[in-house]
Amino acid sequence: MQVRLSPSIEHLIRSLQKLPGVGQKSAQRMALRLLGQRQQEAADIALAIGRALENVRPCSRCRNLCEDDVCQICADDSRDISALCVVASPLDLITIEHTGIFRGFYFVLQGLLSPIDGIGPDDIGLADLEKRLDSPGLDEIILATDSTVEGAATAHFIAELAQQRSIRLTTLAQGVPMGGQLGAVDSITLGHALSGRKPYA
Amino acid sequence: MQVRLSPSIEHLIRSLQKLPGVGQKSAQRMALRLLGQRQQEAADIALAIGRALENVRPCSRCRNLCEDDVCQICADDSRDISALCVVASPLDLITIEHTGIFRGFYFVLQGLLSPIDGIGPDDIGLADLEKRLDSPGLDEIILATDSTVEGAATAHFIAELAQQRSIRLTTLAQGVPMGGQLGAVDSITLGHALSGRKPYA
Ligand SMILES: [Zn+2]
Ligand SMILES: [Zn+2]
Repeated sequence: MQVRLSPSIEHLIRSLQKLPGVGQKSAQRMALRLLGQRQQEAADIALAIGRALENVRPCSRCRNLCEDDVCQICADDSRDISALCVVASPLDLITIEHTGIFRGFYFVLQGLLSPIDGIGPDDIGLADLEKRLDSPGLDEIILATDSTVEGAATAHFIAELAQQRSIRLTTLAQGVPMGGQLGAVDSITLGHALSGRKPYA
Repeated sequence: MQVRLSPSIEHLIRSLQKLPGVGQKSAQRMALRLLGQRQQEAADIALAIGRALENVRPCSRCRNLCEDDVCQICADDSRDISALCVVASPLDLITIEHTGIFRGFYFVLQGLLSPIDGIGPDDIGLADLEKRLDSPGLDEIILATDSTVEGAATAHFIAELAQQRSIRLTTLAQGVPMGGQLGAVDSITLGHALSGRKPYA
């Protein structure tokens, strides 16, 4: 049985469903909790969203999210200017940064190429990336886009830009995840891992 | 490796973690998505929260969330005035309403008694419930509070109010969930279901 809630509550539920990973049921749970006993938390969230939208802007060098002209990573001159990692979102940047392995700089695209959805090079910032590729000292581009059709199309586009400039191009190794059970790995990943098998060391 | 994000983003992540069921990792994912490519959605959510906080108030009869003086349920005179179901939150009311089984009215407490946290009868609206119990035609109170220590304490308190007025008191049947596999049922629930076993019909 579908229960009708008041218009403001229904509107809030529909808005919360736009959050990644939030379905109709959890949006309803969130909305009723926020309006029921957690009105202060609700006001805090609205305020935090408003403040972040106001303060946060893209880094002028890498398009990562920041509140100054350049982000903390671009401002860090201990990093390696010879390597540039291209990602499709600030979240992908953070995910790679968490590994602590990469010490170069980034370029953050606004998503991936998707001709079928009418998303072309200019929509995701590839013209800005092209300018960035002409900065001196750049030796390697690491393609860290998703393993999807869109990710592959975007990687292909960037590969051409790199080849025109004779910049070395690498991409993330594909294979079975560390510490995972083999039975839990999907067969496409496992197939790639088999084709790309390496000498046992 | 912990990556420092800008202050507004960190603040937004901490705020989003207050949503039920949202941990640090999903709050980060939400914040970066909202600020990255979904700024319009972010603004919509902030606006929806603000509007709901402004418009929504407790129903003057049952304390359910609504935008008028009384909620749709209390305004529905086809419902059965003889039965009153007591719940601890608007979410619990909606969950019961979804079953389509109950056609009486509700009273929504603001949570459950918890002496250890200093939450007493007045904090959760039991004085208002007491007034409601004196309304004419009331024949049965259905206790639909959680099966927890706090739920039991609250049920016990309401039971005394009902006994003083000789109102019939019932509570939800406990047992194994419908359609569930026996092996997946926790042993306390299963124990209750065994003790409360019924003739096979
Ligand atoms: Zn930057
Ligand atoms: Zn009501």
